[in-house]
Amino acid sequence: MNPLNQEELLKRIAAKIVDVPDFPETGILFKDITPLLADHDALHATIQWMADALEDIDYVISPEARGFIFGTAAACMSRKAGFIPLRKPGKLPRNVFSETYGLEYGTDELQMHIDDLPKGAKVAFIDDVLATGGTLKACEKLVASAGATLEKALFLIELDFLQGREGTGCAIQTLIHC
Amino acid sequence: MNPLNQEELLKRIAAKIVDVPDFPETGILFKDITPLLADHDALHATIQWMADALEDIDYVISPEARGFIFGTAAACMSRKAGFIPLRKPGKLPRNVFSETYGLEYGTDELQMHIDDLPKGAKVAFIDDVLATGGTLKACEKLVASAGATLEKALFLIELDFLQGREGTGCAIQTLIHC
Repeated sequence: MNPLNQEELLKRIAAKIVDVPDFPETGILFKDITPLLADHDALHATIQWMADALEDIDYVISPEARGFIFGTAAACMSRKAGFIPLRKPGKLPRNVFSETYGLEYGTDELQMHIDDLPKGAKVAFIDDVLATGGTLKACEKLVASAGATLEKALFLIELDFLQGREGTGCAIQTLIHC
Repeated sequence: MNPLNQEELLKRIAAKIVDVPDFPETGILFKDITPLLADHDALHATIQWMADALEDIDYVISPEARGFIFGTAAACMSRKAGFIPLRKPGKLPRNVFSETYGLEYGTDELQMHIDDLPKGAKVAFIDDVLATGGTLKACEKLVASAGATLEKALFLIELDFLQGREGTGCAIQTLIHC
């Protein structure tokens, strides 16, 4: 791929995110990222933007399922970060920390293996969309339970009107604001 | 990372996969890959092995949730492949193809957006574990529904005793046999 400047990159990525009204519930405008994922160059540019922000980060942590799409790839293309999955209850086979949290629509619970994250590690949270920030705040508590530090959070999309940044304690970087 | 030869690579990766007996059900020996994911060098080597097999592939297709961990990263590090997610019912917002299939324990259903995959595209399936092959066979049908070709399937782990290769029509490559 030829290198794209920031403006071209944003234009190309934004053009591959499709608005789907009333999904999964009436009144929700869903951001469909599958056309972006299917475009190798746009996907690569998105992940490279995330990986570039991980220079001093020891671990990337992401929630299932859409967070896995970005988190592992960014960790893999970073200098040294490993990947920690945040999973729904009943999926992780060893002892877990657990947090319940509110979503844009409904509630959910996430779990992390107790021994996956070493004390003092520098951690970055990666997900596709920052909506109300419920997942991010649950992750902050899980990372603190392990004695590690959530240094930053990276998102492809931020839904500014939901004010998900409020009440979070880490640096937040977003590629596309809606 | 210093380049590892194939033998060192396999030894390092195999050492990071933990057997957990009787999970999620009595009698199942679960392969816990989270220690591998947390090790940047082992993760990178695993994804690089997958990406190297994608030279002529247009799209990688992977099932949620653990398939997303490997599929996007491998597509991203490949020469030209985009990524297509196979999702559980109710997750994809536009028109879908759908397939029900048998798992090692239970049954499940996967869906793919009808317009994600162009006719004639060369596709590779990527997942963490090849067990009974139910997911792979469902994916073969979904890819055929779109008029594309499933050329190959790549797995981190293959449970040989479950004979998941039987009845599949594509080339299969596996890093670790159990």
